[in-house]
Amino acid sequence: MKRLLAAGLVLLPLLSRADEGMWTYDAFPREKLEKAHGFKPTDAWLEKARLSSARLARGCSASFVSDQGLVATNHHCAHDCVQGLSTAQKDHVAEGFYAKTQAEEPRCPDVEVNQLVQISDVTPRVRKATANLEGKDYLQALRAEMATIEKECQTSPDLRCEVVSLYHGGVYDLYRYRRYQDVRLVFAPEFRIAFFGGDPDNFMFPRYDLDVAFLRVYENGRPVRTKDHFTWSAKAPEQGELTFVSGHPGGTSRALTVAQLEYQRDVSMPETLIRYSELRGLLTAFGERGPEEKRISTELLFAYENGLKARRGRWDALRDAKFFASLVAGEQALKAALARSPENAAKYLPAFDAIARAEDRYRQIRKVHAYLEYGAGFQGELFHHARHLLRGAEERQKPNEKRLREYRESAIPELTQALFSPAPIYPQLEKLLLGFSLTKLREVLGPDDPAVKRLLGARSPQEVADAAVAGSKLFDPAVRKQLWEGGAKAVAASDDPVIAIARLVDPDARAVRKVFEDEVESVVQKNSERIAEARFATEGRSTYPDATFTLRLNYGQVKGWTRADGVSVEPFTRFAGVWERATGRDPFKLPDSWLAAKDRLDPATPFDFATTNDIIGGNSGSPVFDRDLRVVGLIFDGNIESLGGDYGFDESANRAVAVSAVAITEALDKVYGARRIVDELRGAGAPSATPAAASAVTPKKK
Amino acid sequence: MKRLLAAGLVLLPLLSRADEGMWTYDAFPREKLEKAHGFKPTDAWLEKARLSSARLARGCSASFVSDQGLVATNHHCAHDCVQGLSTAQKDHVAEGFYAKTQAEEPRCPDVEVNQLVQISDVTPRVRKATANLEGKDYLQALRAEMATIEKECQTSPDLRCEVVSLYHGGVYDLYRYRRYQDVRLVFAPEFRIAFFGGDPDNFMFPRYDLDVAFLRVYENGRPVRTKDHFTWSAKAPEQGELTFVSGHPGGTSRALTVAQLEYQRDVSMPETLIRYSELRGLLTAFGERGPEEKRISTELLFAYENGLKARRGRWDALRDAKFFASLVAGEQALKAALARSPENAAKYLPAFDAIARAEDRYRQIRKVHAYLEYGAGFQGELFHHARHLLRGAEERQKPNEKRLREYRESAIPELTQALFSPAPIYPQLEKLLLGFSLTKLREVLGPDDPAVKRLLGARSPQEVADAAVAGSKLFDPAVRKQLWEGGAKAVAASDDPVIAIARLVDPDARAVRKVFEDEVESVVQKNSERIAEARFATEGRSTYPDATFTLRLNYGQVKGWTRADGVSVEPFTRFAGVWERATGRDPFKLPDSWLAAKDRLDPATPFDFATTNDIIGGNSGSPVFDRDLRVVGLIFDGNIESLGGDYGFDESANRAVAVSAVAITEALDKVYGARRIVDELRGAGAPSATPAAASAVTPKKK
Repeated sequence: MKRLLAAGLVLLPLLSRADEGMWTYDAFPREKLEKAHGFKPTDAWLEKARLSSARLARGCSASFVSDQGLVATNHHCAHDCVQGLSTAQKDHVAEGFYAKTQAEEPRCPDVEVNQLVQISDVTPRVRKATANLEGKDYLQALRAEMATIEKECQTSPDLRCEVVSLYHGGVYDLYRYRRYQDVRLVFAPEFRIAFFGGDPDNFMFPRYDLDVAFLRVYENGRPVRTKDHFTWSAKAPEQGELTFVSGHPGGTSRALTVAQLEYQRDVSMPETLIRYSELRGLLTAFGERGPEEKRISTELLFAYENGLKARRGRWDALRDAKFFASLVAGEQALKAALARSPENAAKYLPAFDAIARAEDRYRQIRKVHAYLEYGAGFQGELFHHARHLLRGAEERQKPNEKRLREYRESAIPELTQALFSPAPIYPQLEKLLLGFSLTKLREVLGPDDPAVKRLLGARSPQEVADAAVAGSKLFDPAVRKQLWEGGAKAVAASDDPVIAIARLVDPDARAVRKVFEDEVESVVQKNSERIAEARFATEGRSTYPDATFTLRLNYGQVKGWTRADGVSVEPFTRFAGVWERATGRDPFKLPDSWLAAKDRLDPATPFDFATTNDIIGGNSGSPVFDRDLRVVGLIFDGNIESLGGDYGFDESANRAVAVSAVAITEALDKVYGARRIVDELRGAGAPSATPAAASAVTPKKK
Repeated sequence: MKRLLAAGLVLLPLLSRADEGMWTYDAFPREKLEKAHGFKPTDAWLEKARLSSARLARGCSASFVSDQGLVATNHHCAHDCVQGLSTAQKDHVAEGFYAKTQAEEPRCPDVEVNQLVQISDVTPRVRKATANLEGKDYLQALRAEMATIEKECQTSPDLRCEVVSLYHGGVYDLYRYRRYQDVRLVFAPEFRIAFFGGDPDNFMFPRYDLDVAFLRVYENGRPVRTKDHFTWSAKAPEQGELTFVSGHPGGTSRALTVAQLEYQRDVSMPETLIRYSELRGLLTAFGERGPEEKRISTELLFAYENGLKARRGRWDALRDAKFFASLVAGEQALKAALARSPENAAKYLPAFDAIARAEDRYRQIRKVHAYLEYGAGFQGELFHHARHLLRGAEERQKPNEKRLREYRESAIPELTQALFSPAPIYPQLEKLLLGFSLTKLREVLGPDDPAVKRLLGARSPQEVADAAVAGSKLFDPAVRKQLWEGGAKAVAASDDPVIAIARLVDPDARAVRKVFEDEVESVVQKNSERIAEARFATEGRSTYPDATFTLRLNYGQVKGWTRADGVSVEPFTRFAGVWERATGRDPFKLPDSWLAAKDRLDPATPFDFATTNDIIGGNSGSPVFDRDLRVVGLIFDGNIESLGGDYGFDESANRAVAVSAVAITEALDKVYGARRIVDELRGAGAPSATPAAASAVTPKKK
């Protein structure tokens, strides 16, 4: 296990060293960049980059790469779509997918693409609405105002408006996105090459993965004309070349208080690792029952393994005593700075204690909260749908600003897309997950807990799960649609056994959520806002906010690094390496298409590469581009050292890992014969029902 | 999750409050007991209790309860035997077992019973041998002297001689045991009542378990005449009654340094929880494949679940900030006391730092050590046997005092009993475990680690495991015996694929073991000895040593407690309660025998009870007896609060949990019709080939 870091690293102030920083587009440090790399982007450049960037609403990044709505992202970001379009007879995950014509591009069951069209500062409005409020009153007012602003903004279902909190409440911005829900699958390689090396190589480098998928956004049955898009580079970047990454880092914890970090280190990280590990074992053995079981559980297993490895990296960083001491020192430095002014001391210092007390309160309720409200006790798609049906019906009867946040008007389109998704749900897997989580629920709350007794009665957790899954009609999206549209009356009339479970647990779940919101979340939010204000007061706005799955731009360069054990790592891998690493056994087994194409591929082609860009989970699928807005690669991973980046960036060791644009085009062309996409990427092709003709007249290189 | 403790609790000095203490028989605090409870045991009383106590060498406690070699212990301590005697056709774990005649008592495949016959202090001899030595020289000299003393003592294979370290090297005693390896199964109830409530109720109280099994020790094909034995009480103890527990607590950490406790809290506990959780998930899903899979995996799953729950309790105690602070304060107090004398300061204080440095060193090698040497990378019976065959052959060529400790002469009988055990080994389970652990090995050390590459080559971990298990002959105890007896030559000639794996990894495994012994273990041991000496210097010998799976006697009383949530818990459960708790579904499903016997059982009969006795894992099966040496119950558990007892005893909340003697006799009589045992327990019966006749003339009560 590598030691994460870097003695000098401190949490606060967030003064960015070197290329650190996940910058918002409206506060990109152009001067700093110019000083460091001799390049100063113009407004037009920034706008073009922003509009060419895309977000997959379920948690990934992407980019527009043609004027025909073509979207590049990672295979692992589109896995859900590829899996959802597969059946026991045709497994596109294993076999890959390529739509030879545009007419053959199938619609993904449940993908939403967002394009950020506008950012506006709504901080004054929010501050006014929450002035002098604390605790639950504060939170209620805050949410109501956010919902109101969003509703005003959202004049059409094609828009997605979100008030986002930056700097932990230091700034509130309204992000207005163009929303695309008709998203179709164009190309995905075989899982074996997309995730070559599997879990053992995950977060590792050198690496040899073609982690790419192409989607296309549609409107009214036709590809969207996307004027703003990146161009596709014909070559890999050079060592040392300036690289930009525009994407949606999901979350960082670089401005958390020590109390919050301690909670992560001592409670949430290890508890999650323990729970995920059991699920991992369960899913592994489940997958061994047969090929169909393996097929339907692979994506979930991969998600848990990925989550385990990512969290382990973060946890190891926090457990590094020296590193943690540097985080503590950072907070102490800020506190000391504040203490120098009695006014600041009185105004801001209590915020730290308030957060610590809220964390203590959370420790008391965390199990009930996690198991009853956060869904650890009710895993599986069916319950997820059942709860949304039940709560959605209730909440939609309330005014927008009084609803639970996930049912506010602006959130409904994404929610219903998932709810009505035609992707298959597998009873066997549902039984496994619900049985497991009910068993854990009983284990964690105890067999004598009233909610547990009410749920199980005299039956075992697995019996309850088996009966509920066997009797449920919620597998059918039409049934779910009917219930959603039928509202409270229809849901109340339903005797679906999974809805019955959701109903049975809802009073307790809502109750603990209320305690959480009133006594934990609102306190943390309000006091984090105070700390952000304190930080602005001492540091100004010279820094960037913690990641929040909002669009960020950062810069870095193609660069290797030296590992803790002294080994120095080159920034590139090449096609040649994958043949050496392939053993013929999973996860180091190459798909047949690659074995067949070996002679056609130039072994010197850059495959994957590492950069100093400051990224984190959520950045998957982000374009890596040069100063001419040409995509040179797609982020799909970070090295293991980068996992500590959740808490602080260490340029000497943290690396983003990307698959090169040239490797993608080479593979499309020579492994998959996907000329249609190659031509489109090179700007020569357009979606067409007659791709053969189109590609015949396309010159090989531009 | 309960908060463990108790503000006042401190680690050091180990001044026992109230009834705390796991006392060695040669230093039992009679005066203290007399003062607290008005009873002062005589030498004869203590000798009788000691000789009536028994140890199951694999990790449990027991007692002699008749003059015919009858041994009482827990079902979960005999589970291995009951399972080993079962087949796919006849599942004694599920159905229970009762030998109607002595002739029908089958031999357990792999149980060794020990009776402690003599304790002698060998500290001066050990000190002389290790004088002025440090590090690996110290450890080597220490082990050599221990092996020599043991070999001198062990004049017959019926003896088992062990030099035990008490007070972390403060004292070395020679423990001389009578060793019984012909141990037969007399009675075991169904698993469902032995472990009623399963994992959810484990470490909980109120409780309703008949966790008992009876074994019998044999010699030359006949039951051993055991002059020294406890008598069996006809009634349950009263509330508040003085109770003794004589047994073998496996290990406590009450005298560890803060550095060692931190290592447990931050590394070993959570890492073990994570690894066990994955195995738990794997075994759970494996058991769902079919009834035979369930049968062969249940014992192991139960062991992991038990281990998980026990460790979680300990971990939660360590994560309680207040409790941990009290442990730190304890060490600081000792250090402050030492610092008062410059001589003591110079002599003893560096020992704390030396241990802290050794712990740091261990953190660097712990993964390789755990996976290559400690067996985390090679789980399953086959590898276990293979390594013993391989190493045993090598080590036995060396002089006794130079061998790895597990191959010294005095250890061979227990080792070979396990090695030659006829208990079945299940290929499917072996494949699962070896495949899993090789996968983890690759995960933890990385696919590019030389040892991993050597082991796997181009194959996947599961392929390697499947091929090795499929090709191994080590399932057959006769093959193992042949190889053991054939020695180095036979083992070298073997092409058994599991031995090949053991061979392949042995150089690396031995290398990391050497680093561990030379740079970690020896340093910790030597410096712990110094700290023990320091403690004696400031506190004298008024306290008890940490548990080390050596025989200890403690006293307490039958007593309920008040839980952290304010609920007060009565110290008894009664038969009536089990009917209420039974839901008809596992793990709350009663066996048919109990359902049929309901009307014959007095609902007021005390079933399980709680006492203040200071116990820990390893005490399972210990007799609970009164001042007249009458067994009133058998320890089988502690409450969840007692798990923190690893680090310190809190009489207000820590409780031992026992099944009452009267519940056992009632069940034997009225549920199982096992009059032969009832009569023997009541002193009226003797093993006989004609039990019906014998019981006919036996009066019902004595």
